[in-house]
Amino acid sequence: MAHKSKKPRVLASGVFDLLHLGHVKFLEEAKNTGGKNSQLIVIIARDTTVEKAKGRKPIMSENQRRTLVESLKVVDEAILGLEDFDIGDVIEHIKPDIIALGYDQADVEKQVKEYVAKHNLNVKVVRIGRFEADELDSSSKIRQRIVEKYAR
Amino acid sequence: MAHKSKKPRVLASGVFDLLHLGHVKFLEEAKNTGGKNSQLIVIIARDTTVEKAKGRKPIMSENQRRTLVESLKVVDEAILGLEDFDIGDVIEHIKPDIIALGYDQADVEKQVKEYVAKHNLNVKVVRIGRFEADELDSSSKIRQRIVEKYAR
Repeated sequence: MAHKSKKPRVLASGVFDLLHLGHVKFLEEAKNTGGKNSQLIVIIARDTTVEKAKGRKPIMSENQRRTLVESLKVVDEAILGLEDFDIGDVIEHIKPDIIALGYDQADVEKQVKEYVAKHNLNVKVVRIGRFEADELDSSSKIRQRIVEKYAR
Repeated sequence: MAHKSKKPRVLASGVFDLLHLGHVKFLEEAKNTGGKNSQLIVIIARDTTVEKAKGRKPIMSENQRRTLVESLKVVDEAILGLEDFDIGDVIEHIKPDIIALGYDQADVEKQVKEYVAKHNLNVKVVRIGRFEADELDSSSKIRQRIVEKYAR
């Protein structure tokens, strides 16, 4: 069963490489799903997990990414993920009331929903839309801009 | 005369392109110079000011840079700089008790000290050392890493 307290616990996760407004807006909307008193806990993907999934390490190290995310007003706690990522372990450890997923986390959503259904947990799963703006709102766009400007 | 209130006002400034731990540590140390109750106000350099000084615009726009910096726990207020940067205008407008300068802001320090002395202001000027770590702690190092990894 999900942990019940007066402060709804919202769980979000991600890589958060090259921190940008899209990340902050995602985290703000995630926290909002739990209301005013909610606590936002963020899992930061390990360097090794990112490398396995995307074939390359993030630009910024996991420690730097974790510290930066925890420096944000909207974040109550940022934790490094498990070396061997397992959604069940994360849910059992954090005991969230709500799991908020980003626009690009369809694969995680499927795993989460299956786990929650299988174990009959009282956990709400919400999907956060993409932040739309005429701005650099993804790490890959930022990398692209830098390469265009600085590479020969 | 500097504005006197119960909350010491600390002023810091910078470009804050590609937000990294060095920025956050600088801002935390800046705020600390004013003690527990201090208020940290940060001036974000305009795109045009950066272009004039460095011959190129920042990667992230001034609006994105301002919003990100204001999203940090340590920052009370982030304000875009004047289009025509003038240290005297900034000091008269913000009325800081302390002006904190980064390791790479020797030029601004000189201007600030001259202005403060000339106008006989009660403003403390402090220099914050560079955050030493085996990490990406400057925007140019981050750009360099990206270009190395992604450019052909």
